[in-house]
Amino acid sequence: MNNQLIVLAPIAGVIALLFAYFLSNKISKADAGNERMKEISSYIHEGAMAFLTREYKTLSIFIIVVFIVLVLFIDWKTAVCFLFGALFSILAGFFGMQVATKANVRTAQAATKGQNKALEIAFSGGAVMGMSVVGLGLLGLGVLYLIFQDSNIVTGFGLGASSIALFARVGGGIYTKAADVGADLVGKVEAGIPEDDPRNPAVIADNVGDNVGDVAGMGADLFESYVGSIISSLTLGAVLFKSGEGIIFPLVLAAVGIISSIIGSLFVKGDENSNPQKALKNGTYVSSVLILIASFILSKSIFGNLKAFWAIAAGLIVGVIIGQLTEMYTSADFRHVKKIAKQSETGPATNIISGLSVGMYSTVLPIVFISVAVLLSFFIMGGYSNATMGLYGIALAALGMLSTTGMTVAVDAYGPIADNAGGIAEMSGLPKEVRKITDTLDSVGNTTAAIGKGFAIGSAALTALALFASYSQAVGIQKIDLLNPITLVGVLLGGVLPYFFGALSMEAVGKAANHMIEEVRRQFREIPGLMEGKATPDYKTCVDISTQAALKEMVLPGVLAVVVPILVGLLLGAEALGGLIAGAVVSGVLVAILMANSGGAWDNAKKFIETGEHGGKGSFAHKAAVVGDTVGDPFKDTAGPSMNILIKLMTIVALVFAPLFVKYGGMLLNMLK
Amino acid sequence: MNNQLIVLAPIAGVIALLFAYFLSNKISKADAGNERMKEISSYIHEGAMAFLTREYKTLSIFIIVVFIVLVLFIDWKTAVCFLFGALFSILAGFFGMQVATKANVRTAQAATKGQNKALEIAFSGGAVMGMSVVGLGLLGLGVLYLIFQDSNIVTGFGLGASSIALFARVGGGIYTKAADVGADLVGKVEAGIPEDDPRNPAVIADNVGDNVGDVAGMGADLFESYVGSIISSLTLGAVLFKSGEGIIFPLVLAAVGIISSIIGSLFVKGDENSNPQKALKNGTYVSSVLILIASFILSKSIFGNLKAFWAIAAGLIVGVIIGQLTEMYTSADFRHVKKIAKQSETGPATNIISGLSVGMYSTVLPIVFISVAVLLSFFIMGGYSNATMGLYGIALAALGMLSTTGMTVAVDAYGPIADNAGGIAEMSGLPKEVRKITDTLDSVGNTTAAIGKGFAIGSAALTALALFASYSQAVGIQKIDLLNPITLVGVLLGGVLPYFFGALSMEAVGKAANHMIEEVRRQFREIPGLMEGKATPDYKTCVDISTQAALKEMVLPGVLAVVVPILVGLLLGAEALGGLIAGAVVSGVLVAILMANSGGAWDNAKKFIETGEHGGKGSFAHKAAVVGDTVGDPFKDTAGPSMNILIKLMTIVALVFAPLFVKYGGMLLNMLK
Repeated sequence: MNNQLIVLAPIAGVIALLFAYFLSNKISKADAGNERMKEISSYIHEGAMAFLTREYKTLSIFIIVVFIVLVLFIDWKTAVCFLFGALFSILAGFFGMQVATKANVRTAQAATKGQNKALEIAFSGGAVMGMSVVGLGLLGLGVLYLIFQDSNIVTGFGLGASSIALFARVGGGIYTKAADVGADLVGKVEAGIPEDDPRNPAVIADNVGDNVGDVAGMGADLFESYVGSIISSLTLGAVLFKSGEGIIFPLVLAAVGIISSIIGSLFVKGDENSNPQKALKNGTYVSSVLILIASFILSKSIFGNLKAFWAIAAGLIVGVIIGQLTEMYTSADFRHVKKIAKQSETGPATNIISGLSVGMYSTVLPIVFISVAVLLSFFIMGGYSNATMGLYGIALAALGMLSTTGMTVAVDAYGPIADNAGGIAEMSGLPKEVRKITDTLDSVGNTTAAIGKGFAIGSAALTALALFASYSQAVGIQKIDLLNPITLVGVLLGGVLPYFFGALSMEAVGKAANHMIEEVRRQFREIPGLMEGKATPDYKTCVDISTQAALKEMVLPGVLAVVVPILVGLLLGAEALGGLIAGAVVSGVLVAILMANSGGAWDNAKKFIETGEHGGKGSFAHKAAVVGDTVGDPFKDTAGPSMNILIKLMTIVALVFAPLFVKYGGMLLNMLK
Repeated sequence: MNNQLIVLAPIAGVIALLFAYFLSNKISKADAGNERMKEISSYIHEGAMAFLTREYKTLSIFIIVVFIVLVLFIDWKTAVCFLFGALFSILAGFFGMQVATKANVRTAQAATKGQNKALEIAFSGGAVMGMSVVGLGLLGLGVLYLIFQDSNIVTGFGLGASSIALFARVGGGIYTKAADVGADLVGKVEAGIPEDDPRNPAVIADNVGDNVGDVAGMGADLFESYVGSIISSLTLGAVLFKSGEGIIFPLVLAAVGIISSIIGSLFVKGDENSNPQKALKNGTYVSSVLILIASFILSKSIFGNLKAFWAIAAGLIVGVIIGQLTEMYTSADFRHVKKIAKQSETGPATNIISGLSVGMYSTVLPIVFISVAVLLSFFIMGGYSNATMGLYGIALAALGMLSTTGMTVAVDAYGPIADNAGGIAEMSGLPKEVRKITDTLDSVGNTTAAIGKGFAIGSAALTALALFASYSQAVGIQKIDLLNPITLVGVLLGGVLPYFFGALSMEAVGKAANHMIEEVRRQFREIPGLMEGKATPDYKTCVDISTQAALKEMVLPGVLAVVVPILVGLLLGAEALGGLIAGAVVSGVLVAILMANSGGAWDNAKKFIETGEHGGKGSFAHKAAVVGDTVGDPFKDTAGPSMNILIKLMTIVALVFAPLFVKYGGMLLNMLK
């Protein structure tokens, strides 16, 4: 094969970055509205950037420590890749946030001219994040592969991406929910002022949180999945094809994916009165179809058959199905959310029970479809007669699912921008018609956020399974046998980790929210004229509380996710570590789906009641639904999404440190023997 | 070895049954109180017996179908064992309930003479259930083994026990919680009458439910674990020791366990003012120590070394530790429950979040200790140089944990009897001092119930793992390899089953409770003079609602648990089925611990607030805590405990149908190949 094709990957990466630059220029030139709007948006912008800067400062210690460990115990090349992975993930988050916090106010201003203008700005803002993620991901991976020519070394890039992702998701999740719960409980419930009211001291922190959690956190999450799925196909492809097809195919496909996402994004155009969700879906469908066509051609021309095409298609289609399933369980258009709303009539307890059972039900079909994708791609590519090729098929399925990442992240990041725009419109007192438009855009954003979460979980599962296959190759074990009690113990310990992790992050939100509640109460009490709108609240202190809590509480979970797999590998050996990963993936995916979907369903059940059903706003049923919504907040925005990264990070830690386990693995085990 | 020693097993079984008969005579002779008390207790007795009779009738269809399937596809001997397993489980439930519903009223009457008299009756009632469980279990297994002389055939006995257990737990759980939630929501909250008030139409159903769920359901659950742990050591022991030691040791140890439990029960004696929990603990400790001594002697004399002793000890001690851990997470004497109570001050949402995070935390240590027991028993007995012997060690650990079952069930079944006694005292208006005594006994019962649940989960996990080892022997597979995607898919599908199961059973409770709520409201509305205490409510209709709901809703989960493993084995093969079981065990144990401990913690947080903390009864915090308690009800009494049985039943189905999978397994897989 012509190895020079690999250069297409960094080229596509650069194109994505140029496109992002072009979009961000367009946004910058748009009208940022009146002085009041600019002022509010600058608060949000500064708060978000201050958080990012401090977060990255804290992380620099972690990055340096891991870098040194890698130099000492693995090799300096992997360490360099790790550094770039971390750096590029940080850069993607930085670019995305920079533009998102500019796009929000401009979306609000554009809404004064119509829905379509506003949609364009908001989506362009999201697309900058999307293009930064895929552009930096593929540029980094491509260049590092061209330099080192070794797929095992570039796994370091994935480790860097994963580490940043974990801290960004956990930290961002804690930040946003502490602010949200604090703003709601004191502002809406106790003081009786509307959402996004400028008198609420936590309102800026709340809006910053949307960016920190849903733009930067989510972006880092998918950056990691994207990079991980490519790495997994590179490592397996390198083993399988001596003349390079196994490397060329995934890199070129990813390059095509970027172009498809760019073309798809041009189709995100609605007219004034149509549902903006239709426009967003159009874009996604266009890029999916383009990728299917491209993978058909690539599969035929590179491998000479269509097996790879089918594996890619299986992943891509199952990704779309999981998104649709998520919508089914979390949108008020379907019976599950309606049932929760109905159960709210008998109070908060029945609301909670019914939301949890919807969440539990909602785990079944995604797992079945992921299983189908795994089996199809395995048996189509290789099957038992060529098991490594079959595993490569699973990696390709993950790659297929993630090939539209540019578009997916764009749609996802559109949500918080629209949400922010609504907040800014409210705070700066824009006319009702404008707020109606921002509300429409925001509500679409809630649905896309739920779908995006489902997609993030599904892709994390498939990526982790693909990386799991790479891990087994890297440590050179022939089996991970459940009849070996050490494997079983690994599975048990892996299974419990997501629970521990979830408990830690939910408790962190609780603590931070309590702190925020006290501060908001204090300001209402101590700042004279605040409630009358004559004084400005001290937004900064609230921003600080969220920032500090997020930075402090993200450390333990983050360190655990890195240290536990290394410890298990060293003490109990590579097979136990394999069990640990499998257990963590299964348990983590289940908890993540449960939490994301319960949370989304509770949220929409409350909104459904607010449309006037079951007594409407302020009714007994509504109060019960608010309880469910509040429980759902840390579920869907903190603990749930962290699971995605936990499982990917643990797997990639195992993969990168594989040489260590080959040499020193199973020290405790050897004593027991 | 002298195979005649095996006869000790059925002899010990008969001794247990004779002891149960002696105790039940003693109870029958005790004073049943005044006419009013006799009347109420007869309602409960009749309701409970009516439910059991109808439940067993419904189950007879299931039993006949499975019997025929076994005759056709496995062999008639296994089918006969199955029949006896089912029958003996039914008999144990029947005996236990018969006596428990006699002991309740006599405990109330004995309380008029002092706490110690009341404790004696209540515990004797529980001990009848305990002795019936172990007596029938060991008698059945022992005789069937003596007849057929084949450990693979007697696995049918375990399948019978498991099937009945599943229906009894799920059905009982739905029954008790529908009645409980219905009685509480309308009676306590809407009508404002106290708990156990005779004017409440659902009050009899509620008291029946305590017996149906916590006596019969729990008894069937532990009957199954007990039988399963013995079967697992028999099947592995038969392979390992040609001269019979592997069979003799577990059977004789179980026989000794019965004698130890009988002796231990004689130590359950308190004085008037001491805490009854101390007396119950004394009994448990005495039997544990006796078993340790006996297993030391048996290990030395049968195997000539102490390896078996250490395996037994590991299981026994870890069982005690898990009980203690459960207490730590669910008792108000420790910080976790206090934290939930504190979080109730900011409302139901924070109460729920904090209860869930306590539940999630509480999974960590039990899993670690179960892992330790698995590793210790495996490496002590055999290790990698003799892996089957190592697996036998795991089976012995399970046996060790369950060797005190007679005592454990006795303490567990004591709880609902004391609870019922309190209800009867309340309904028949016994003096305050008497109710104070029954309240004390009841509150001890809550703690022992929580500990018992932890123990049931831990033992289910270990039993399932031991049976998993037996399964691998039976299908003759050398490995269950996680690198085989079919195994991974099995693990994924197995992992999701407890979620599906949990959703089904929680929804069933919700539906039945709604039905009950409507009926209670209707009676309050339509029966003139009911609230004034001038008319008798229609208890029977409420009992019928719970009965019918339980019978209807238990069918689908029960059938699923049997059909899914058979389908997976036939379609995807024995290795996928192994993955399915491993996935289900890990995920099921985690969900079960989370649900049991969250539920217990919410319950006790509410009770803690009712002692006057955080504003006491009727405060804002108390209302929030009631929400948590209500959510916890189906958690800890329906969905959670069903998980134990789900995992054991699936494993034993796999074990019994193993010959089928050897012949026809993996049909779908063969097509994919």
